[in-house]
Order: sequence, then C-alpha cells, then structure tokens
Amino acid sequence: MNIVLLSGGSGKRLWPLSNEIRSKQFIRIFKTENGDYESMVQRMYRQILAVDAQAAVTIATSRKQVSAIRNQLGDQAGISIEPCRRDTFPAIALAAAYLADVRHTDWEEPVVVCPVDPYVGPEYFEALKKLGDQAASGRANLVLMGIEPAYPSEKYGYIIPDSAGDISRVSAFKEKPDEKTAASYIRQGALWNGGVFAFRLGYMLDKAHELLDFTDYEDLFSNYEKLDKISFDYAVVEKEKQIEVMRFGGQWKDLGTWNTLTEAMKEHVVGEALMNDQCSNVHIINEINVPVLALGLHDVVICASADGILVSDKGQSSYMKPFVEQIDQQIMFAEKSWGSFRVLDVEPSGMTIKVTLNAGHKMNYHSHKNRDEVWTVISGTGKTVVDGVVRGVRAGDVITMRAGCRHTVIAKTGLKLIEVQIGEEISVDDKEKFSLEESF
Amino acid sequence: MNIVLLSGGSGKRLWPLSNEIRSKQFIRIFKTENGDYESMVQRMYRQILAVDAQAAVTIATSRKQVSAIRNQLGDQAGISIEPCRRDTFPAIALAAAYLADVRHTDWEEPVVVCPVDPYVGPEYFEALKKLGDQAASGRANLVLMGIEPAYPSEKYGYIIPDSAGDISRVSAFKEKPDEKTAASYIRQGALWNGGVFAFRLGYMLDKAHELLDFTDYEDLFSNYEKLDKISFDYAVVEKEKQIEVMRFGGQWKDLGTWNTLTEAMKEHVVGEALMNDQCSNVHIINEINVPVLALGLHDVVICASADGILVSDKGQSSYMKPFVEQIDQQIMFAEKSWGSFRVLDVEPSGMTIKVTLNAGHKMNYHSHKNRDEVWTVISGTGKTVVDGVVRGVRAGDVITMRAGCRHTVIAKTGLKLIEVQIGEEISVDDKEKFSLEESF
Repeated sequence: MNIVLLSGGSGKRLWPLSNEIRSKQFIRIFKTENGDYESMVQRMYRQILAVDAQAAVTIATSRKQVSAIRNQLGDQAGISIEPCRRDTFPAIALAAAYLADVRHTDWEEPVVVCPVDPYVGPEYFEALKKLGDQAASGRANLVLMGIEPAYPSEKYGYIIPDSAGDISRVSAFKEKPDEKTAASYIRQGALWNGGVFAFRLGYMLDKAHELLDFTDYEDLFSNYEKLDKISFDYAVVEKEKQIEVMRFGGQWKDLGTWNTLTEAMKEHVVGEALMNDQCSNVHIINEINVPVLALGLHDVVICASADGILVSDKGQSSYMKPFVEQIDQQIMFAEKSWGSFRVLDVEPSGMTIKVTLNAGHKMNYHSHKNRDEVWTVISGTGKTVVDGVVRGVRAGDVITMRAGCRHTVIAKTGLKLIEVQIGEEISVDDKEKFSLEESF
Repeated sequence: MNIVLLSGGSGKRLWPLSNEIRSKQFIRIFKTENGDYESMVQRMYRQILAVDAQAAVTIATSRKQVSAIRNQLGDQAGISIEPCRRDTFPAIALAAAYLADVRHTDWEEPVVVCPVDPYVGPEYFEALKKLGDQAASGRANLVLMGIEPAYPSEKYGYIIPDSAGDISRVSAFKEKPDEKTAASYIRQGALWNGGVFAFRLGYMLDKAHELLDFTDYEDLFSNYEKLDKISFDYAVVEKEKQIEVMRFGGQWKDLGTWNTLTEAMKEHVVGEALMNDQCSNVHIINEINVPVLALGLHDVVICASADGILVSDKGQSSYMKPFVEQIDQQIMFAEKSWGSFRVLDVEPSGMTIKVTLNAGHKMNYHSHKNRDEVWTVISGTGKTVVDGVVRGVRAGDVITMRAGCRHTVIAKTGLKLIEVQIGEEISVDDKEKFSLEESF
C-alpha cells in the first residue's frame, strides 16, 4: 500500500502545545499500551504499519516539519518536501512525482492520500486498503472516501452519492454548508468529504503533466515556487467523470480543538498534575516540570507548555485564535532532527537554552555573528568541533565560543548541555551553516 | 511608636506563591501607586512609616525569613530572630529584650505588637498609635485591639467587652467558637481578637523575668532552645487583671486564602495574562515568563509560579492543603539578602539556576563537596573570588569551580549569572561557609 499523508501547516487552535513551528500532529499526547505517549503522526504511522507492515508511507509536508518528522518517525518514512505552500494540487503532484522518481513506484500501483490528523481506529486503515484496491481495479480514476456524518457539520464539504451502496458513483459535490443546509444534505444521504482518496499513480502523473510544465520530480521541486496555487478539488475532483465514493462508517474524528482533542484522550491527566474530587470533566496536559493543581473546576482544559498556560472552558476553547495571535512569542521548545531544545530563560542581554542531542546525532556546523555562546555539558559524552578543533567532552566540560567561530557538538551517547547565549541581538536567523568534514 | 510585627511561619495555603521558605507575607502582589508591586510586609512597613516616620519597627521572625526581610525592607527595620519556634510568649519576651538591650528603648515606652499579614488601611495605624498611647497612660497593663466582627467567623477568638465604649475593660475571652456560638457572641457585643495589643516595655520585661530564667537579650537568645513552648494568651492575657480592649471598626482582612487575597487585589491580572470577556470574577497571578490565557471561566483563581500552577474555584481554594502536602518539592525560587535565585532546570546529574545579585551585594564565600559549578555572567559587572584569586567579571565571562573550591561573586552593578551545578548528589545542605577578607 502506498500512502501519502498530508501533514498540514502550523495551527494555533491547540496553543500552547501547537505553535508556528510545532503543528498539532506532533504533540505527544496519546498514551500507548506501553505507557509512552505518541503524537497524531506517530499514532497514524504505527496504525498503518499494523495493518500493512510493507506499506510505503510518504509524508507530504513543508520544510520546517522535516526535523520533527525525522525525530518522531526515524528515517524509514519518505518525505516529499514542498519548498513552499502552493495549495493541494501541486503538493499532490509533487508527492506523485516523488513516488515515481525517488521511490521508483510502478505507475500502475494505487496511491492513497489522506490527512495526517484525524483520530481513527484500525478499521480506517482497512478501508484505506479497500480504497486503494478499488482504484487499482480501474473501475474509476478517483475513489473518494465518504465519511458517514456524525452531525450536520459546517466544517466539511459534502459528497452526494448516487446510491446507498458501499461504493457508488458521485452524484454531486457540495461546498461547506451552513448547519441547516448540511442537515438537508444528510437527509439526501450525503457523506463528509474528509480529503481521503485513491488513484493509480500513473493517472495522477498524467494529470500533473497535463496541468503543470515539468519533466521529472527534480525539475518540479526546483521550480515549485513558480507554480500557481490551485486546489486538488478544483483541478481534478470537480472535473473528473470517472469518480466513485466509498462509504466509511467507522471512527473518524477531527481533533482540531481542545474540546475534541480531550475527548480522544484516554486519561484526564498527562504530566504532573493533581485534582480534587470536586473537579468534573477536567483535562490537564502538563509538559513543564512543576506540578499543576486543579480544585473545583468543571468542563475545563488546562494545558501548560514551555510556550504558555491555557485554562479554558472546553466550549470556549475554539475561540482562542485572536488571543493567541496577540501573543507574539519566542519559540520556547522545538524538536529537531538531532534531538530538541528548550528555552530556559530570556534576558535582554542573553538567553539560556537546554539542548538535548540523541545518541549518534549532531547539530549543523554553524556560526553566529551577534552572539557568544557557552556550553556546559550536564550529561553524556561526545565531541565538540570549534573552528576545526575536535575535543572529547563529558559532564562538567565547558566550551566557550565567541561570535563568528564555527561550532558543533556530536553526541556519542545521549548528551545534554546548557547553552548560554550572550548578545544584545539574539535571533534564530543569525546562523550561518558550514559543511563538516565526515572525518570528525 | 515602637511596633513589633510578628512575621509568622511558612504556609501552604497560598501555594504556589507561598512555600516552605517563602511565606505569604513576602509575595509581591499589591500594586502601588507608582506601578510596582509590594508584598504584605512591604505594604505594612510603608503604611507604618506614612503614619509615623519615626516609628521603630522590629520584625519578630525566624532565621529563615531574614534574607527575605532584608531584601524587601533593607537594613532599617530591626529584626528579632527567634533561634527556633517556642510559641508566642517566648517570641514576645525575646522581642521585648531586643528592644531594651539592642535598641535601647526606654522601659516606660509603649510597644505595639501585631501580626504582619492583615490587610488594613491607614486608619489601622492611627488606631495602633492610640493603642500605644493608652498603654503609655498606665490605665491598664495590657490594651488589646478588639476588631468589630464582619461575620461570625470560626477562625478568631472573641473578646467580650464590659461596655460598648471605644475603650473598656474586658469582661471575658472566648476560644475560637463554631459559627452558631460566634453569632451569639456577636449579639452580646463581642469583638474579634486579632492578636494586636500594646503594653509598656517594662511591664513585658517584668513578665518575662518572672516566667523565664535569663539575664539579658544575649542570654535569652542563646538559651532560647531550652525554653518551654507557651502561648502569650495563656502566660499573660488570661491572667492579667489590668486589661482593656479598644474597639476598631476599620478595614481589617486576613488574607490567608486565595479567595480573600484576590478580594484585596486592585487588578484582576498580575503578570503576563489574557482573558476573554466570557470570564467573570477571575484573577490571574503569573510570576513566570510565559503568558497565561483564560477563556470562559467564572470565580476562578489562576496562579503560576516557579513552584507550580494552581487553577482553583475560589470557594475551593481553602481545601488545597492536603494536595500541596503531596507535592514534595524542590524550592524553585528564593529571595536572599543579596538578591534572588531561580531554578531553571533540574536533571538527575545537574541543576541550572539563574542568580540575580543586587548592586553592591555578594554571596557568602563557600564551597560544595559534591558538585562542580560553572558560572556564565549574562549581565552586569563585578568580581569573583575563587580559592582566594580575585577576578573582574562581566557579561560573557565563564568561571569554573570544581567541588571543594571556595568561591563567591561580588556584584558592582546589578549582576546576573547562569549557574550550572554538576553532580549526582546536589543538595542545599552541601555548603560550607568561610569568612572572606574585607579587602576583596
């Protein structure tokens, strides 16, 4: 099974866990059977492999999510990087070219495209398989999944099928309606359009070449910025005559707000927290290292992260966007391909950061124009390279780096260090990268 | 006017702002006219000096509050340090001996004793003055303040006066009653006993010598541990025949719980916080450097500090004690005589702390057995002394100290540094102090 997971942009509706660089799909919030926590993307990746251990999974995403994906999924998952956002048709065309030219997928093979963030059970992946099989059968060029509506939602487009059968031709598509119209669609047997569909790879490549001027993946990638923004629905779906819809009645939840997200949580508390028995329907997600205490609350979600603290009535949590937009904020925590960093302290004249490197990983070799840095290793072993000079390091070692000097750290074991940045003009953009000889 | 402010022990009822070493009276939560925030002890000290600029204020307290008092009040306030807790009679006797032998107060002068933590207006201090004048007049040995009850509280003892006059003899004392009994006392004209009283210094010293075996302040201080615990009420008040009560009808609030404390706050928000207009009767006190967002809450207090996060229905906030006792916690923030420290990060193998020194102040010269330390100066200038070697330091300088080495930092300007402690057995008790030659 070839699956392309569309990993969308950053969102602020789950602040303070999601922010500009940490999209909701990377929040580790779902408890697994072994007691660890996994994110939406980890959960979906695990669920796919449970149904088909041979599945070829490709994440279609932007450059800034690559570090988080590598950190959470390792190196096995394919990544089709959109150099910039150009709406869904170019993104799907790029992923199709990636599958053909980078992963050498046969043009006859079916490809299933779906968003990375719905909360679903195993039956969903069985349905994806059937969707792919139906596309492979060639009875239609495009097979959509139609989700049986749980309520007259205003958030989805609707598909009106020709018949009540499991698979049927599409009679009409309807844009996102108001609630009353949605209810009337549902009475006509309409299904939600969740953005899940399957096609033969060759079909999509033909479409891509028809609408976009490119030779192969490399070429499409290099000229991606020049493409027009065009949606997949507009470019393909609405024009395709050979189109079917397959009905899906299993669990399918969009966890886009705190209200819906907490409904999907197995436990009321993630992280260090206490509540008294006068609390009801309270969820606490605490990512920081001091405790949360809740007393006498009802229908409330509390979330504490390195970025901030939310305390919200669950019904009100969907109204947070304008407030979060007022919070013009330093990124306080980020997952990188080599580990993670957490901002511990911000001063006008400097910043203190805790850096965690995974065993065997290293930072880019880089320099800063406007700040000195001091590393104090607090655990683990590894090597530092400073202006070409290699040095073994372990807990207690101190490395000082003046502005302009090139530096990196290479972790042998897991390695943690405290980085103190000193300078008046500290910015994430003040970074020049250099290549590091492999011999280090 | 001689005023002894009784500064009581640590409390957990205002967690996470109060903790084992930070009592509620040191929380800077009341906005002043110039926009700064002051604590209960700062507020009361300022209010006393506003009424009587010549007032001799003595804080009777335990050793562990001395740093916070010096930090908040400077060097002008007298401090009578109880070497250990021995209940109220020894504490008041010690303060009296301190006034006589250290501050050389005349035995005929009146002394007013009151707790440091009620929330009061200027009229309270006018009343204290009258209380002292009444004691100086010699018409009674002890003059109590009787507070006109706002409601039938179960928290206070009651004083039943002989008459409804401003000053009257005491007819009876009543222990803390239940609500119904309290209501019946109030119908009889009873007043709250708020622990505020005045006496001539000589009277109290006579009582002290009568009941305790000591020669002078020095002697009483040195042998304080050997004293029995005995309350002032039992030792003095209940036995005194020449006793009067002076009625006080002004503002007098005990800010012992979040519910009462937030009632006394001028603003709904202290620190970085946002709330939407669906919130009602919400107070947010945010001492940390990330924002708090509150949506759709009612009658809730939110408090975030370095120690933790409380979100409580205001009525429920008085039930926090058993929960806070479960939280066995590292002290994350403390005010010291020389400035303050804040724990930024805790790892099994080390701890990261931000140290803020006030201009002209210095740490003790000290060493640690079980940890190395690294200081990175992030702002300000000063000197460090490491094993006797003096060095000027400024932002960007790094000082490494192996376990066992003696060290201190002396701030010229305000100075901030990041201290990384490295070691498996980090403890506040791992500290040996040394004298530092004045020449440094």
